[in-house]
Order: sequence, then C-alpha cells, then structure tokens
Amino acid sequence: MYEKKGKKPGKPEQQLTPLSELGEFGLIHRLTKDIRHMQPSTIKGVGDDAAVIDSGKDEAYLVSTDLLVEGIHFDMTYTPLKHLGYKAVVVNASDIAAMNGTPRQIMVSMVIPSRYSAEALDEIYAGIKLACDTYQIDLIGGDTSSSTSGLVISVTVIGTAVKEEIVYRKGANPGDLLCVTGDLGSAYIGLLLLEREKKVFQTNPGMQPELTGFDYQIGRFLKPEARTDVRRLLEGIGVKPTSMIDISDGLASEILHLCKQSDVGCKIYEEKIPIDPQTRELAMEFKLIPSVAVLSGGEDYELLFTIPQSDHEKIKDVAGITVIGHTTEPSEGRYIVTPDGKEVEITAQGWEAF
Amino acid sequence: MYEKKGKKPGKPEQQLTPLSELGEFGLIHRLTKDIRHMQPSTIKGVGDDAAVIDSGKDEAYLVSTDLLVEGIHFDMTYTPLKHLGYKAVVVNASDIAAMNGTPRQIMVSMVIPSRYSAEALDEIYAGIKLACDTYQIDLIGGDTSSSTSGLVISVTVIGTAVKEEIVYRKGANPGDLLCVTGDLGSAYIGLLLLEREKKVFQTNPGMQPELTGFDYQIGRFLKPEARTDVRRLLEGIGVKPTSMIDISDGLASEILHLCKQSDVGCKIYEEKIPIDPQTRELAMEFKLIPSVAVLSGGEDYELLFTIPQSDHEKIKDVAGITVIGHTTEPSEGRYIVTPDGKEVEITAQGWEAF
Repeated sequence: MYEKKGKKPGKPEQQLTPLSELGEFGLIHRLTKDIRHMQPSTIKGVGDDAAVIDSGKDEAYLVSTDLLVEGIHFDMTYTPLKHLGYKAVVVNASDIAAMNGTPRQIMVSMVIPSRYSAEALDEIYAGIKLACDTYQIDLIGGDTSSSTSGLVISVTVIGTAVKEEIVYRKGANPGDLLCVTGDLGSAYIGLLLLEREKKVFQTNPGMQPELTGFDYQIGRFLKPEARTDVRRLLEGIGVKPTSMIDISDGLASEILHLCKQSDVGCKIYEEKIPIDPQTRELAMEFKLIPSVAVLSGGEDYELLFTIPQSDHEKIKDVAGITVIGHTTEPSEGRYIVTPDGKEVEITAQGWEAF
Repeated sequence: MYEKKGKKPGKPEQQLTPLSELGEFGLIHRLTKDIRHMQPSTIKGVGDDAAVIDSGKDEAYLVSTDLLVEGIHFDMTYTPLKHLGYKAVVVNASDIAAMNGTPRQIMVSMVIPSRYSAEALDEIYAGIKLACDTYQIDLIGGDTSSSTSGLVISVTVIGTAVKEEIVYRKGANPGDLLCVTGDLGSAYIGLLLLEREKKVFQTNPGMQPELTGFDYQIGRFLKPEARTDVRRLLEGIGVKPTSMIDISDGLASEILHLCKQSDVGCKIYEEKIPIDPQTRELAMEFKLIPSVAVLSGGEDYELLFTIPQSDHEKIKDVAGITVIGHTTEPSEGRYIVTPDGKEVEITAQGWEAF
C-alpha cells in the first residue's frame, strides 16, 4: 500500500474547500490541470467535446462520456423512462457530432435503485435501443449496480472521424462567422413548463397538467436529437468549420468556451438568435427575455461553429443554419449586441447585466 | 415524441418483476439479448471482459467499463480515497488484461456527494493518477455531477491488442489446462477483516482496529493490481491462452462463465488452488473452508486462462502461474475434486454442497 492512512471525508485535517466554491468547470480544472499523457496515440485529452485517439490510419477515434443523474439532470415525476434512455444516448452522440465525427459504439452503465422493476429497465433500454437504431450506434457493453439512492446513467460513446476533418473548440480566427444550427431556447422553456405543472400538481393533485399545445418545447427537452446530420450538410456545401462545440449548457457558456480555447473575442447580435415564435411568447409569459433563456438555458443539443467569412455565400441561404455574429480580436472582449445597439458583456451565468 | 406517456417506477400497470428475482447476470441477459450490431467495426459486443472494435488494421480496440458504487462496492468507513481512485483504474485495466490487451486510455466520471470537499476529490484523483502512471494509461476525459446520495465512480478504459492475439472467454477446448495467476482468496479475507474491525469499532468506538500483521490481505482488497504483465510473460514463453477471464467475482463464477462460453466442462482440484498460507489460516478463523473463500469470495483481479495440454512443459515451472485442473467435454459437467477424491459440482454462488 502506498499510504498508511487515507483521509476520509468529514474528518478534516486542514481548511477544506467546498465544491460549491469551485463550480463544475473549476473543479475539473483543479483535478485535471496536471495531467500528462504517456501514450503517443492520445491526440487530445480533457477539454473538448470528445477526446481524440490516433489509430495510425487516416481515421481517429473520438471518445466522450456523459452522466445523467436523477434529481440533477432529470426529474422522475415528469421524465418517461423510455425518453430518458433515448436522451442518454443523444447527449453523447451530440458530443461526437460537435467534433465533426460519427458516433459508432456506446457503453451504458447504470446505477439502479433497488425499488426499480425489470420492466422499468426494459423501458429505459427500449429508449436506448431506439436511439441506437436512429443514430446507427452499436450498444457494445456496460455495467450495472444496485443502489440505495437515485438512478444514474453513465454512457461512453466511441466515434470516428477522418483526422483532418476533426473540428475542435480551438481553431476559430478573429473575423470568422459564428453560426448555430436549428433554433434555441425551446428545451429550456419545455423544462420550465414541466416544472410549473409539477408545482401545480403538487399543490393540487386533482388538477390535470396543462401541457397540450406545447409539444415542441416539451419534446425538445425530453427527447432532444443529436445533430449528427450537420457534418454531411456542411460537407455537401463545401464548408469546414474552423471550430465547433455543442450547445448543451446554454449559448453563453458555450460561446465563452469556444472563444477561450480559440483565443478570440466575439460579437453576437441578439435579434439574429433563432428562437421559435411560440417559445419567444412563452419566455415572455415566464417573465424572461427570450435571448436570456437561450444564453443561460441549455439542453438544446444544437451546434455552435465558426466558419471563415469567405464561406458566407455558401452558408447564408442554408435552411436551419443561422449566422448570429462573428469572432473578433481577443482584446475586443465577448459581447452581445441588443437591437438598439447596446453592447452587453457575455458571462458564463448568462446575461446578468439585464 | 415517440410515446405519449411513459411508465414510471412505482406505478405498476402490470405484474412487475423485482430485480432481485433476476440477479445481475439475469438482468444483463434480459436487457441485452436482442441487441443487434449495425457497425461493421463491432467485432465483439456484450459478453466478455471487454468489447472489441476493428480498426481496419492489425490492431483492434478493446473497451470496457466498470462502476464503483458507495455502499455496494466500497465502504467509506475503511476505504482511503486514494486507494479508491487507484482501484477504479485497476479493475478496468484488469478487464483489458483479461483480453490479452494493453490498456491505453481511460475516461473517469464521478457522481459526487455535495458534502465532499475539493481536497477529498484531490485524494481520489491522486489515486487515479498514480494508477495511470503505474499502468501507463492516459486519463483523457470524463464527466462530473453532484449528488444528494453516495459517491459513484464510473470508469471506461480503452485498450489495444493485435487482433490475432486477443483472447476471449470462448475458445477453450476439452482437455485444455486451467491455469490461474498469483494466489487467490486473500482480498476476500482482507474484506472480512475490515468488516470485523468495523463492527468492533461500531460497538466500542474507543477500541483501536486490529489490523496489524494483515497487510497482505488488506492490501489485496484495498489496492489490488491488474495483471497487465501476464501478456508479456506468456508471450515470453511462447504460450497463447485459448480462453481467458479475470477473477473479479470469485473463481466459481468465472470458471462457469468461461466453461459456458467455450462450451466445455471442467475439473479443478481443490488442493491445487494457490492460497497464501496466512490467508488459509485466517479463513479457518472465520470458519470458512479456504477454497470456498476463493470460489465465492471475489476481488482477486488475477487471471484464469486455459492452454493446450501440449503447452504444459512450457508453463509448469513458471513462478506465479498454477495449473488448477483441466477442461472436459461439456457433458461431463463442472466439478471441483476434494483431496479425498470427492467430486462436488461448482455453482455460481460458490461451493454450496459443503
């Protein structure tokens, strides 16, 4: 044994740092900052949507992993188990799409509360298998364990990409165009709708939830899709992004990641952010500025990417892709411009200046 | 959405099957029996120590994943956090060793109770990094989430092996020799010692734990090593196993897996099972027949493999490898032979006939 006595949580011998003080990104930085690689095949480790492993051929392997934890990422009161299984695959496939790759295989591990029935797990797996069929991914392994607490699903995805076609978070140059796929913010509004009806139900269990007519928003939250189609779409028009990231945590946080790793600033235009009209109305109902819901909401699983300005002609009329701004010199900062021309600094927590 | 209403746990609409009725292997079979592969690169999916992915070159990729769950796989009262991190890597590396491969990269995901300090996580990561250094594995990514309950560590390992050198659980022929590496049973006795001292401490918190002198057993449990060295050892003497599995769940369960997948029977000899002399004595103290501790105890992380009888000369004098019996025609059943010649059927739960 390399150590006679280990420290135990709850038995402090020094001033301890609560995790809340660091936040998730701070914690990851602290734990991984001194990592060094020994395997020559490791092209990229921690710090992008997926790690990259050299195969010695044209193709490289992409590996990413995502946790779904009950009470943190999903609420059992309104999450159908089949949707949960589907989403567990999608959030991982999205990470591979964000590297401009193709997901191929997944490993699925589950920590299962002992109160669960086999039929409940059948439902989760039905969702996993449906997503595998949809995205042509093979389920090749996993692990299961019982638990005395909540459900945890841990998925690792393996994808491939031709090495020269991989797109990292770094790679954007000042003056590139910032583009997003699809529309943003609806998943977050879907979550707010589900949370609202949950509260109504909790105070008045006889009430029926008012969710009719909000299929789009609720569907975007409960059953997102991964944009694995974007790679071929861009290939088809002869565009290769200079940088890319998936929008799982809210546009603000993702833009800041991309700018930081590419060492650029940015300017995005509030009125250009693609938002579904009904989502816009619902945001107002929730007393939210629609673009704030987009910047800080998350769960969209669309892609944010940059392209050289010279590719503007190729992309400007492509349905489902919107240019929302451009990158700048790093010294120019990271700003969102309101319709009346006011520039507001983008912060990781969203758009706090409002 | 592909489904209007999902079933929720605890709201049965039909006769439900409790998980305890299936057991872990029954559950995995139920959830994965209808899986079909669509990716031509998937050589082997669920059902071995690791999945195998074709790279289109001589080398294939091996992928395996293992969960460590607080309260199930480890007890915080006697598990130093650094050891826990070390073990999380080792149990995964062991799966790659069991395929005759070399571990290269890992992804580490953790569900972290909010009461944990950053320093506690530093300790876990110190163990992870030490194991990575020891086994020349690169930590290339992961995910973290907070939790309201216990700690969960989910590790996925990626390894490589020359395709023709991969050893599966299937592949043993009747008449092959059954071999094990190292000695068995000490990890389980280590666990029993820790559990005993935990109980003493709980009834009498003033007492000091009596663990001095049991370093070997406790070390085998708290800080096992993966037998990634065995591949080169066997290569050096010109032996390629016909089948292999790692001994993580107890020898009985692993022998049955190997026999089932290879479609063979087996006969192992109780007196040939390598057991550390002190472990043998301690087993008796715990009122256990030592071979029963080996058959049903688990946590050894040694390797069980078969070789053709013609290789007996090559292996018989190799230190640290023991021939414990041989495989037979499947119709001959799976037996352990006691020193007085009695044959007892091997069952997954251990050696229940005793």
